[in-house]
Amino acid sequence: MLPKGNFPEKVYLNGEIISAEDAKISVFDRGFLFGDGIYEVMMQLEHGIFYKKAHLDRLQDNLDKIGINYNIEEIDDHLEELLAASNLKEASCLIYMQVTRGVAPRKHSYPKGVPPTAMMYALPYTLPLINPKKMKAVLEPDFRWHRCDIKSISLLGNIMTNEMAMEASTDEAALVRDGVVTEGSHTNIFFVKSGTLITHPANEHILNGITRQIVLKLCDDLDIPVIERPVAQNEIPTMDEAFFTGTTTQVASIAQLGPHTFHNNDEIGMVTGKLQEALAQLRSSDSSEKVL
Amino acid sequence: MLPKGNFPEKVYLNGEIISAEDAKISVFDRGFLFGDGIYEVMMQLEHGIFYKKAHLDRLQDNLDKIGINYNIEEIDDHLEELLAASNLKEASCLIYMQVTRGVAPRKHSYPKGVPPTAMMYALPYTLPLINPKKMKAVLEPDFRWHRCDIKSISLLGNIMTNEMAMEASTDEAALVRDGVVTEGSHTNIFFVKSGTLITHPANEHILNGITRQIVLKLCDDLDIPVIERPVAQNEIPTMDEAFFTGTTTQVASIAQLGPHTFHNNDEIGMVTGKLQEALAQLRSSDSSEKVL
Repeated sequence: MLPKGNFPEKVYLNGEIISAEDAKISVFDRGFLFGDGIYEVMMQLEHGIFYKKAHLDRLQDNLDKIGINYNIEEIDDHLEELLAASNLKEASCLIYMQVTRGVAPRKHSYPKGVPPTAMMYALPYTLPLINPKKMKAVLEPDFRWHRCDIKSISLLGNIMTNEMAMEASTDEAALVRDGVVTEGSHTNIFFVKSGTLITHPANEHILNGITRQIVLKLCDDLDIPVIERPVAQNEIPTMDEAFFTGTTTQVASIAQLGPHTFHNNDEIGMVTGKLQEALAQLRSSDSSEKVL
Repeated sequence: MLPKGNFPEKVYLNGEIISAEDAKISVFDRGFLFGDGIYEVMMQLEHGIFYKKAHLDRLQDNLDKIGINYNIEEIDDHLEELLAASNLKEASCLIYMQVTRGVAPRKHSYPKGVPPTAMMYALPYTLPLINPKKMKAVLEPDFRWHRCDIKSISLLGNIMTNEMAMEASTDEAALVRDGVVTEGSHTNIFFVKSGTLITHPANEHILNGITRQIVLKLCDDLDIPVIERPVAQNEIPTMDEAFFTGTTTQVASIAQLGPHTFHNNDEIGMVTGKLQEALAQLRSSDSSEKVL
């Protein structure tokens, strides 16, 4: 039996839609033994799944990167059915997908001819048009691996740093590697200086978030100049604004980052505000085939 | 149903011993969603479980490090029963243990009050007294996280580098971080120069293997000088011998490491040979309470 908590009603598992209680995998699944899998999180909003194609393309791309031979059309083909079974056909909800390398005797090297395990669920989830949070974040050493571009389920580094943020009664941890701010424990981070947006380049030290990419596109539309370069930890006090982005985080103003205060009370930065408005507008628009 | 392959007969799962086929966990187990767990591998040999206390102490220590509140006496209490149920009471076998943070709705931060998931199995496994392999290994960038001292199941970096070794038709990948050789994808690595053993210090860039610690103790007994310092990749050709260690690897001579050949044909280094003999003798001795 599942413990109490906000679990979904139904789970898609390897071709079947079953109750969440019955959704079980073998202890020999390489997802459980090795963290050997890829995941994706999407939001269904007023006008369908927000940037669905970008999310699914990234899932396929990441599976290809680590040599898991799975066509994401297979899981996508069951998405409508899952939403219907979950009574979430038109509802605001979060969609979680995970594909692992499948069940095999425990051995580091990749097994041959093993079918991957595909799992997905949808959970009622409401996002405000604009994230009202004025976030506080701690600065923590980025001790994660050097392939953060892969959206892998081997997430212990991420959850350990996220827990550090919780222990400090803050909302998120911004991570510092070799003196520069890379990203949050489960978000990307942006800075604004003299009207220019500055963010870490999308290399192997960050995940190239879909919301990150949307924000860069919005900057282009809004004629906000962008520089993709690492921001040194000691530059933080010289920045005017900062915000986190993510699929559920959207664009979230950072009021306090480590010892530095960007904003007091309900203030938020001008560029941050503009981007929040633009993202809200994008969500409200009926261009259902949004692509990056 | 489990696919074909070398699976154990029985699995211990959360207090029960069940058939391997029935050993299933919720897809909401944090081991499956986040790689949020610790594992351990031990060998039962002629005189009982080899350095059992050292392995169990490390498991407890690692669980404490990541804040999983579990007393390993609970799993240890069922070990005899598992071995009996598996018909491996006196047999040579491998024992695998894994403890995860348990089942909870997916959220990065640690859930409160959730019982951990404990899993264990034993598999028939015979080790020769001396590993006869003359290993070939590739050199690969060490892109893993910076807490390799934690024996976590978030192992994607390890399995990716191990797979690179397999693709190159070699036995193992030796990993290079910032120009120095840290360890193998699932082994520790040692070098010998002018009769002195040199190995990476046990810091956050390597796992402090039990066999590594046994080898250091044997060096003390055998008056083999030891220096714990990183070996630069470009020093490899100046070394006389090299070997990998691990619970199933034991002491394995390295014949070829990247482009450098240490030994041809059946040759092995003198110090490597001495340590193999000493480890074999340790295994054959009846000091059942071996501790480090």
